[in-house]
Amino acid sequence: MQKTRLKEMINSIDYAAAGNQMYQLVSDLYPICRSITGNGVRKTLNKIKPIIPLEVNEVPTGTKVFDWNVPQEWNIQDAWVKNSKGEKIIDFKKSNLHVLNYSAPIRKKVTLNELKGHLYTLPDHPDWIPYRTSYYQKNWGFCISHNQFAELKDESYDVFMDSSLEDGALTFGEFHLKGASSDEVLISTHICHPSLCNDNLSGMVLSVFLGKYLSQVTLKYSYRFLFIPGTIGSITWLSLNEKKASRIKHGLVVACVGDSGNFTYKKTRQGNAEIDKVVGHALQNSQKGFDIIDFFPYGYDERQYCSPGFDLPVGCLMRTPHNEYPEYHTSADNLEFVNPENLSTSLALYLDVFNILEENKKYMNQNPMCEPQLGRRGLYQHIGGHADSKKIQLALLWTLNLSDGRHTLLDISERSGLDFSLILEAADILVEKDLLKEHQIQN
Amino acid sequence: MQKTRLKEMINSIDYAAAGNQMYQLVSDLYPICRSITGNGVRKTLNKIKPIIPLEVNEVPTGTKVFDWNVPQEWNIQDAWVKNSKGEKIIDFKKSNLHVLNYSAPIRKKVTLNELKGHLYTLPDHPDWIPYRTSYYQKNWGFCISHNQFAELKDESYDVFMDSSLEDGALTFGEFHLKGASSDEVLISTHICHPSLCNDNLSGMVLSVFLGKYLSQVTLKYSYRFLFIPGTIGSITWLSLNEKKASRIKHGLVVACVGDSGNFTYKKTRQGNAEIDKVVGHALQNSQKGFDIIDFFPYGYDERQYCSPGFDLPVGCLMRTPHNEYPEYHTSADNLEFVNPENLSTSLALYLDVFNILEENKKYMNQNPMCEPQLGRRGLYQHIGGHADSKKIQLALLWTLNLSDGRHTLLDISERSGLDFSLILEAADILVEKDLLKEHQIQN
Amino acid sequence: MQKTRLKEMINSIDYAAAGNQMYQLVSDLYPICRSITGNGVRKTLNKIKPIIPLEVNEVPTGTKVFDWNVPQEWNIQDAWVKNSKGEKIIDFKKSNLHVLNYSAPIRKKVTLNELKGHLYTLPDHPDWIPYRTSYYQKNWGFCISHNQFAELKDESYDVFMDSSLEDGALTFGEFHLKGASSDEVLISTHICHPSLCNDNLSGMVLSVFLGKYLSQVTLKYSYRFLFIPGTIGSITWLSLNEKKASRIKHGLVVACVGDSGNFTYKKTRQGNAEIDKVVGHALQNSQKGFDIIDFFPYGYDERQYCSPGFDLPVGCLMRTPHNEYPEYHTSADNLEFVNPENLSTSLALYLDVFNILEENKKYMNQNPMCEPQLGRRGLYQHIGGHADSKKIQLALLWTLNLSDGRHTLLDISERSGLDFSLILEAADILVEKDLLKEHQIQN
Repeated sequence: MQKTRLKEMINSIDYAAAGNQMYQLVSDLYPICRSITGNGVRKTLNKIKPIIPLEVNEVPTGTKVFDWNVPQEWNIQDAWVKNSKGEKIIDFKKSNLHVLNYSAPIRKKVTLNELKGHLYTLPDHPDWIPYRTSYYQKNWGFCISHNQFAELKDESYDVFMDSSLEDGALTFGEFHLKGASSDEVLISTHICHPSLCNDNLSGMVLSVFLGKYLSQVTLKYSYRFLFIPGTIGSITWLSLNEKKASRIKHGLVVACVGDSGNFTYKKTRQGNAEIDKVVGHALQNSQKGFDIIDFFPYGYDERQYCSPGFDLPVGCLMRTPHNEYPEYHTSADNLEFVNPENLSTSLALYLDVFNILEENKKYMNQNPMCEPQLGRRGLYQHIGGHADSKKIQLALLWTLNLSDGRHTLLDISERSGLDFSLILEAADILVEKDLLKEHQIQN
Repeated sequence: MQKTRLKEMINSIDYAAAGNQMYQLVSDLYPICRSITGNGVRKTLNKIKPIIPLEVNEVPTGTKVFDWNVPQEWNIQDAWVKNSKGEKIIDFKKSNLHVLNYSAPIRKKVTLNELKGHLYTLPDHPDWIPYRTSYYQKNWGFCISHNQFAELKDESYDVFMDSSLEDGALTFGEFHLKGASSDEVLISTHICHPSLCNDNLSGMVLSVFLGKYLSQVTLKYSYRFLFIPGTIGSITWLSLNEKKASRIKHGLVVACVGDSGNFTYKKTRQGNAEIDKVVGHALQNSQKGFDIIDFFPYGYDERQYCSPGFDLPVGCLMRTPHNEYPEYHTSADNLEFVNPENLSTSLALYLDVFNILEENKKYMNQNPMCEPQLGRRGLYQHIGGHADSKKIQLALLWTLNLSDGRHTLLDISERSGLDFSLILEAADILVEKDLLKEHQIQN
Repeated sequence: MQKTRLKEMINSIDYAAAGNQMYQLVSDLYPICRSITGNGVRKTLNKIKPIIPLEVNEVPTGTKVFDWNVPQEWNIQDAWVKNSKGEKIIDFKKSNLHVLNYSAPIRKKVTLNELKGHLYTLPDHPDWIPYRTSYYQKNWGFCISHNQFAELKDESYDVFMDSSLEDGALTFGEFHLKGASSDEVLISTHICHPSLCNDNLSGMVLSVFLGKYLSQVTLKYSYRFLFIPGTIGSITWLSLNEKKASRIKHGLVVACVGDSGNFTYKKTRQGNAEIDKVVGHALQNSQKGFDIIDFFPYGYDERQYCSPGFDLPVGCLMRTPHNEYPEYHTSADNLEFVNPENLSTSLALYLDVFNILEENKKYMNQNPMCEPQLGRRGLYQHIGGHADSKKIQLALLWTLNLSDGRHTLLDISERSGLDFSLILEAADILVEKDLLKEHQIQN
């Protein structure tokens, strides 16, 4: 059976239902305590496997990856602080954010003063628990609300951190979807955060559903999905796949796509890559407010993909950027902060981007000397059944005029001011009538 | 006898008189019923011949011209509709717009209902007769005012269309004016419209007078004037002259130049061709309001010249663009809609454009190391008789400084902010003093 | 002893003291009557020699320099006009501006009428004496206030001009400061004006102090200082040093830098030379109002350096441009019109420009594949003692990301929006840590 084109599929999706399914998966993954290594990541990837057949890779602790080494594996069973009466006043079981992520194991009686040196709070948001990590500096600690902190009594405390830091592996998921070409589109998402919904369960879940939908259509490009811990994950993948990396022709880092803010696109380091133009066009087309910002060398994994030795055309398409919403990296980035509608709008935008990428070809006008006679082919004045016959006619003329091997359909859309979908429809009609032929470029 | 330069001639023209002569020719040609083929075109070209010695070409019906075929020749002697009392209620003799242009012959009794299926009106302008054609779909019809249409009685009508559609020829006029170079400037104007003054008797007549004036001066470029039916005419010429077309280095389609609107320049497909810069400069210089718009692949014959297989640098210089004035393609585009003043201002602008084109050369400063000593050549402080000695002195310095083989006089004018005419005067002075020499480029 | 870098020295200068010293030198040179040739120039250069060891060159009258000839040497001992009572009413000893600069000798009785033909005044500023010259047209004359002119009585006058115009030499000063590279920075200043403080004692004195300070540091570039008469001086130097001129990679003409106006930078003819970017950045950084204007082929000696045969990247960095302040070329351009503060701010800006030029190198990231691990090198979060640790961290990331051999430090500063000094500090740290290495370009 002939698979459909993406352009057909995106119109047939029930986006409301897809939003609900994505939100359900966010909810399922929310309680798991993830970190850059360890069983939390494995559990997470195993929950994704039934939806897309991803490969789970394990890279041993100590593996040299460029300037870095794969760190030890961190696992945690339990953690608490008890007061002098033996009451658990901080309990990992209630929220995995209570633990300073990557804390070393400890069991110790401490004074209030010593305890305070290991507590992290948010004075500006006294009800919220912060999310803090200590990956590359051995430490232990707890994160609590500032209100609770203020009420701590000057007594003795019993601290218990039942964690382990041992040689093991860094775990990541990879899903490769083969298209007609070996040229790849990279979709990269970080999976190292514990119970935080927008950053980045939203990105993980959207990536999963992109994988699911793209699997159902005929593709020009191959798509590579990476579910990796931030920074060390992309460094590890790039180090182990240095040659494969050159196949990546376009890429997006997926993060923070469940909140209610406007879309924000952070451009590639190159700044004028095809993905930059495509996302820009899709955002224009979305008829909602959006921001496009220049590349800067911090943020998510795009900083690794865009390091000067790789300089891959990878941007980052999010809603409100990290650090620009107060709930960022706190317990308030919870199941109420994201919702099905936001997830489904993000899905639609991403699919629109990939549709443009898939269809953004160059064509050659087969009658380049003067216009062909459209009338005798039934393409003049009345195009069968088209709601807006004037616009499709302009689209036909523009597509013929600019199909000289130098302009992609997106270029034609931008120059004519007509929607990409209309130009694509015109190109499809003209190919059907033998007036246009795809321009094959020798690489 | 040495012919003068265009720059001298344009200052010696009596523009008011020229405007009146052009308007007189518009009036003479107004009554003729033209179409894309036939005797109307022949009559028209014969009236032009005494002014410029154009060649009249006939291309047989059926000749294959790229994707098209030269159509049959259409001629018409008479046409009318009579009511049941035998009164002529529509009469071709009163206005040739009454006939659907290219109507097939017919003689028939029809009901009101059947007649209405062949009548065209303008409900928004109930006094005006529309201009309609049916070139590539065999049909017959009449165009009348909506007022008249509203009063038609339910009776029987006698329809008579004494036209013929037979194998013959497509007729067009061509005038080639030889200059020093075989590089050509194309001036193309469509001649297929019947009694419509602005679109395009104005363009035809302006082209005729441009030919007349340019014949009187020494020219750098050769000029090719085409008087052709729209679309099929330019396709025919390009098809028969594919190789010659490559000589065209600059070109303008002349249309709608007699109304009172601002000038509008539609750029070439290339968008930054020399003709685009030259027209832009001439418009800036005109100190009147104007619009410059980007190329789009519909409009007049520029759509053929700018088809991707040719991509000639041909723009379109008009006043109010087609379709943007209510009188467009109606009986209101009449002898009152155009006037001598508008025609003469258009003439002046076109001549200014050609003057810049003719003189827009590159020069080499013959003393490129530091400034030459202008004082001992009498070029410093007091330039004999010049009204604005400060400005001409700046023009001399700019022209010397930028005459490095990379800048045309127009480039120098744009960069210095000084009038092209002043820079041209400076260049003439510096050539005279052996400080500048034309830069000969090997093509 | 290892000399310091300019970046260190510029922070250790006592700018207030330097301003006073510069103003003192302006005061010392103010009374001398300079012209394009003669003893006034020699006396001036001799007063500079104790501060910087400049070479004084003499080019004989009549030497052919491109299209020009070195003119005769002009010297003047005394000049006056006496009225019929024998009273000196105009006296060169009171102000050397009273003499039309380059006046031929004369001793003559004249009528008021004849005298008036040789007097120059400023009706708009009736108290001021204008500065006028007659270099290339033999003449004599006096410049006086318009008030005095208005009161002259109709009597006989005794005119005495004890000047000489004889074969001799054109005198100019040259100071070459050797740096690591033979690539040169040109600093050119005109020395031909008599008692005018801003134009151009300010420029001369600033150039002297730039020479003094730059002598004290290690330099990448060699610096060539020219103290020359306007126009004929730069033409002479370029004519005698045609080959050396190609070593000039950056240059500034120094003029009008003592008044209280905003800085104005006139760009090089090339318009996007490195010096243009560097000065633009230094001005942005100065956090004061400024203007950047395009090159035009008149003004100071940049018009010779930027003639098409040389086209050197030489701009002009001044405060209020010539001719845009009423005191320009009048007796009001005196010791009150300039002040130590303005001179010292100009010094600081020029040194900032040269510091950026000196340090504006390209580097290669030595770990270009992904980011290096900054944490284990102590470069993450807490950079020792840095006031603004967040900004320096961004500077480190930006510098690493863009050090690909294509971006200079200035490019990185502009793209990141971070101060050049911060980027420079980051580069110094990264070089120290072996993460960055200077990119050596083969010329």
